[in-house]
Amino acid sequence: MIIILNESANDEQVDHVVAKVAELGLDTTVSKGSFRTVIGVIGDESLIQPDQLEAIPGVAQVVPVMPAYKLASREAHPKASTIEVGSGKVSPVKIGGGYLAMIAGPCAVESAERMDAIASSIRDSGANILRGGAFKPRTSPYSFQGLAEEGLEILRDTGDRYGMPVVTEVVDPRLVDLVCQYTDMIQLGARNMQNFVLLTEVGKTDKPVLLKRGMSATIKDLLMSAEYIMAQGNSNVVLCERGIKSFDPATRNLFDIAAVPQIQELSHLPIIVDPSHATGRPELIPPCALAGVAAGADGVHIEVHNKPEDAMSDGPQALLPEQYAEVMVQIRKVAEVMGKQISKPAAATV
Amino acid sequence: MIIILNESANDEQVDHVVAKVAELGLDTTVSKGSFRTVIGVIGDESLIQPDQLEAIPGVAQVVPVMPAYKLASREAHPKASTIEVGSGKVSPVKIGGGYLAMIAGPCAVESAERMDAIASSIRDSGANILRGGAFKPRTSPYSFQGLAEEGLEILRDTGDRYGMPVVTEVVDPRLVDLVCQYTDMIQLGARNMQNFVLLTEVGKTDKPVLLKRGMSATIKDLLMSAEYIMAQGNSNVVLCERGIKSFDPATRNLFDIAAVPQIQELSHLPIIVDPSHATGRPELIPPCALAGVAAGADGVHIEVHNKPEDAMSDGPQALLPEQYAEVMVQIRKVAEVMGKQISKPAAATV
Amino acid sequence: MIIILNESANDEQVDHVVAKVAELGLDTTVSKGSFRTVIGVIGDESLIQPDQLEAIPGVAQVVPVMPAYKLASREAHPKASTIEVGSGKVSPVKIGGGYLAMIAGPCAVESAERMDAIASSIRDSGANILRGGAFKPRTSPYSFQGLAEEGLEILRDTGDRYGMPVVTEVVDPRLVDLVCQYTDMIQLGARNMQNFVLLTEVGKTDKPVLLKRGMSATIKDLLMSAEYIMAQGNSNVVLCERGIKSFDPATRNLFDIAAVPQIQELSHLPIIVDPSHATGRPELIPPCALAGVAAGADGVHIEVHNKPEDAMSDGPQALLPEQYAEVMVQIRKVAEVMGKQISKPAAATV
Amino acid sequence: MIIILNESANDEQVDHVVAKVAELGLDTTVSKGSFRTVIGVIGDESLIQPDQLEAIPGVAQVVPVMPAYKLASREAHPKASTIEVGSGKVSPVKIGGGYLAMIAGPCAVESAERMDAIASSIRDSGANILRGGAFKPRTSPYSFQGLAEEGLEILRDTGDRYGMPVVTEVVDPRLVDLVCQYTDMIQLGARNMQNFVLLTEVGKTDKPVLLKRGMSATIKDLLMSAEYIMAQGNSNVVLCERGIKSFDPATRNLFDIAAVPQIQELSHLPIIVDPSHATGRPELIPPCALAGVAAGADGVHIEVHNKPEDAMSDGPQALLPEQYAEVMVQIRKVAEVMGKQISKPAAATV
Repeated sequence: MIIILNESANDEQVDHVVAKVAELGLDTTVSKGSFRTVIGVIGDESLIQPDQLEAIPGVAQVVPVMPAYKLASREAHPKASTIEVGSGKVSPVKIGGGYLAMIAGPCAVESAERMDAIASSIRDSGANILRGGAFKPRTSPYSFQGLAEEGLEILRDTGDRYGMPVVTEVVDPRLVDLVCQYTDMIQLGARNMQNFVLLTEVGKTDKPVLLKRGMSATIKDLLMSAEYIMAQGNSNVVLCERGIKSFDPATRNLFDIAAVPQIQELSHLPIIVDPSHATGRPELIPPCALAGVAAGADGVHIEVHNKPEDAMSDGPQALLPEQYAEVMVQIRKVAEVMGKQISKPAAATV
Repeated sequence: MIIILNESANDEQVDHVVAKVAELGLDTTVSKGSFRTVIGVIGDESLIQPDQLEAIPGVAQVVPVMPAYKLASREAHPKASTIEVGSGKVSPVKIGGGYLAMIAGPCAVESAERMDAIASSIRDSGANILRGGAFKPRTSPYSFQGLAEEGLEILRDTGDRYGMPVVTEVVDPRLVDLVCQYTDMIQLGARNMQNFVLLTEVGKTDKPVLLKRGMSATIKDLLMSAEYIMAQGNSNVVLCERGIKSFDPATRNLFDIAAVPQIQELSHLPIIVDPSHATGRPELIPPCALAGVAAGADGVHIEVHNKPEDAMSDGPQALLPEQYAEVMVQIRKVAEVMGKQISKPAAATV
Repeated sequence: MIIILNESANDEQVDHVVAKVAELGLDTTVSKGSFRTVIGVIGDESLIQPDQLEAIPGVAQVVPVMPAYKLASREAHPKASTIEVGSGKVSPVKIGGGYLAMIAGPCAVESAERMDAIASSIRDSGANILRGGAFKPRTSPYSFQGLAEEGLEILRDTGDRYGMPVVTEVVDPRLVDLVCQYTDMIQLGARNMQNFVLLTEVGKTDKPVLLKRGMSATIKDLLMSAEYIMAQGNSNVVLCERGIKSFDPATRNLFDIAAVPQIQELSHLPIIVDPSHATGRPELIPPCALAGVAAGADGVHIEVHNKPEDAMSDGPQALLPEQYAEVMVQIRKVAEVMGKQISKPAAATV
Repeated sequence: MIIILNESANDEQVDHVVAKVAELGLDTTVSKGSFRTVIGVIGDESLIQPDQLEAIPGVAQVVPVMPAYKLASREAHPKASTIEVGSGKVSPVKIGGGYLAMIAGPCAVESAERMDAIASSIRDSGANILRGGAFKPRTSPYSFQGLAEEGLEILRDTGDRYGMPVVTEVVDPRLVDLVCQYTDMIQLGARNMQNFVLLTEVGKTDKPVLLKRGMSATIKDLLMSAEYIMAQGNSNVVLCERGIKSFDPATRNLFDIAAVPQIQELSHLPIIVDPSHATGRPELIPPCALAGVAAGADGVHIEVHNKPEDAMSDGPQALLPEQYAEVMVQIRKVAEVMGKQISKPAAATV
């Protein structure tokens, strides 16, 4: 940690900072430049909150030199992690470390028939994890909020029959146990990326977690949220870039493709992309999916619906099953160029 | 609702849209222009999710003409609402409709002594509601997370002795009842503005709610979140502009002052400003507080701490008690120009 | 300047950085921390481009400690500057150092009659500088581009008759001389804030310059552009906050009110606000104008048009003359609270 | 064009709008809904400025239904354009319509020796157009501003010897003729994307133009700037996505990969990507370059320097020649998957 003082900082203020750092158990080196004084902190800077130093009169800026996330960092774990999702009937699908997750399915679970039709089709196209929401976080209190436990049952049953592990979102800390009874992977949505209560509860489970980036979260914010989960003991975190806020209203969000290599540099956790939410428009999903794989992502999450205009949520950002089949053909070719493999799900029993 | 079709949309697609709208129980008028066809929806458009129409092939854009928030809108309630906070020992403080809330206090409740010292000072300066966090949503799992119930007890006791209603944040739906036992007003923080589970729980209580704008929430998003609370029956919602994300790293957030008159045009709910979080730097708090009052805000929320460098959270964005006293002198003058009153808290018993 | 190395940086890389800095004529101090090595640069860091150091293998981050703008900085000129605009018939109006500029007029000069009517009205309301565009930077090549020299003549003549100094925009380096023959103050628009060729040409004149902030310019960027003008010898620069890009499409731009006190802390140059461009909606102009004055701005720029629907440019963001009169009544009251004066223009001859 | 009135709009206001549109030569249809009145404009809406209608009392919103750019739109020219750059010694390189531009070279032309070394290397790796700046727009007036005409001479000579067409930036309308004497393609930089004077001058030439997206320009803004050039008669415009402003300071800009398919949907003009400026960090350039090609871009622009720490501008965002060679190997494989070709430059004479 480096503490830069104001040009006008006096000796008393310098001494005050040094004393404060000493009180927190660390050493300092003081360098008086021709323009400003700079104080270097020696030791484990995680013992200090930058806030406390910034609040001292005379301090201009505090520059941390260690990442604030420890468990999630590459320093802590130089080798890329491979996370396994599913067991038993839906034998494990690998994500990361050279394996691509191909997550697909409707935004919300709507009925057993629709779920079956979609699962059957996307499995044929090469998807290896089935998604579907049972609890939907909607911006309007008057919108469809999901089928709740009935949705979880349908999702589990469909996954089992098609040999596909399933992922579904949890939005309420009181329901984490219930959701865990049904799902192979827990999704934390963008709006809950900094719901620290929920992160903590999910961290207490041993389920793999799909943590979506908040729409105004920096990459550091995302890694700090992964750290919350990991600090509770659950290291099976898969990150997901799904678009961030921007000034151009042309797309729902802005797909931050450069987040993929940045996260891979800073962290050992797998990072996948979600071009459905990132763009909100079906014609943009295939090119952005391919871009994700070419940028080195560890998987692609795409919403698929067989009748978007009847979808109870987010219809306009879903691909049709036949469109999904087409993009998967191209994804496979780019994956090959990148030297990546796509785990196959277990055998279907239907 | 107006449905604009693609230039290339054919008659079959037009008929499909008309049929879909009819299926949802509403009428349409079709206008064929020289360039595009436009379909107007006649009736209560809240019965339709724009999503469903956007997903129909041939539809270019769906433009709602009614606000999606009903209870929060000016149309529903043309007169500005006045919300009352506190009762009994801390007899009600009015917010909105000509009355300014002056909310102040430390970021977190740290000890009874500190709380007492701060409350005593800010009350003298003219603050009328006391704030202090007992449950702190922190970006790092390793940071101080608040004193929990002990913090609530200290806050309640301090408020009672100084005759000041108190406001504190709730972050967990399981703790809403507990927090309600101690507080006069519930705060929902920026990171929880779209925590719909929490909004719903808070909506079931009858406590006034201080709903802070999310850092990437549009004004419409904020009003939709207020609608969530109101849809459960709790109409006592006070909104708070506290800065949004921007590209300039110079300040922690960007203070969106124009949100104040915009919200007052769209909604009857009071809107206050929080220059502490909006700027994150004490020297910017006084000018931004004055700007808020001059722009017509219904109150000002400022963090005050008597030793910022020892603050367990957010020290650098707090004013010292004497700085708060100074800005309150100016705030009172601007409030007078604006024709606004500042409710006095009840008599202190200390 | 502080150079932070990567955790993995080796001794050879440290030596390389030290040698590079020495080659550029400056000294260094090297501090080896437990986690990273940090190199402090001693001497005039403006001799070094951070770029050059960042490109050296092993360097993680370069943190400048001196402002890159020298002439524009508070350090260079601790007292707030007062700029005088106009001479002769339109005797000087002061801006900064306690004096407020009240700049008003139509977006574009459209005709002598309209200019006369508007000038007469806004002068009565208290405006002290008259604006009007003769060369309009329009986003569409098919839109009205201004009356060119005829517009300059009308503006000059109107200003002279009403005793008001005039300000008009220049968009072409080839026309700086022409525009200077007619105007008392040169405006550089937001889209030209980083048109360095134009900044340089304007810097060679002795006319006061109204430099508008670009819609994606940081405060530092704005001060660097002021520096461009000042480096050519023209120190008469007045800055203008006019809204920046944001994710909320509700307003044309986002009014960054906190930029006012920030700029006053960093620079001695006056900073005014332009709520017309910052919001783009007439109902938001008065509250934002008052907010600007309350935040300490050195003036307010408002577009006024007597028939907005016939305006050849930007009609929807103009106030009517009677609306301008109303807001000026309130502005004067807030200005009094702030202890600011409004220079009166010279006597009118009409 | 669709005009949506306020809920409170009265008949007189409706009549006023209808009369105004008639005055501008177009017809209307009026639809009175249960909540609002909507007026459709029939005819060529480009005759109307939305501004003029928005300024009429009672008008809530004006929704254009035709693109404001005509020449640049897909409607005007359904087939993707192929632009040819270079002639004679540097026989034409194709961009668009299945052909990829591979533009590379240093940020600034620094010396004949360095230019030669870089050109030789990148040509071997597969680059087909050579870049180098002779006039540099720098944010600081104290930074290196380019070698001017000497730089143009070196660039021309190097391109000729290696059979590579050259592209260089123009920043001053007075120098367009000079630059055209030396270059095969004119670059307009991000900061000049809305320098309408410069766009107009460049539009009068017949040189292909590389138009970079401004860092806060929407996709529509970019196409409007292309329209400026095309409206003067020059249709040889190649667009370039080079990153936009964002709230995350982790990268210099945010690479908007989804802009590629969006622009290809809206316009016939080629669109290339520039991962150097988009990310500002060499380790992110290769993954973002591959992502660009996978997303369907018509080319890739990468800065290459053989000693970045000595670069006079933007060293930290350049690849080393050997890094460029590596990424080109991968780019070729992804290009093959996408079915794209890379034009070869003419034979070198060195």
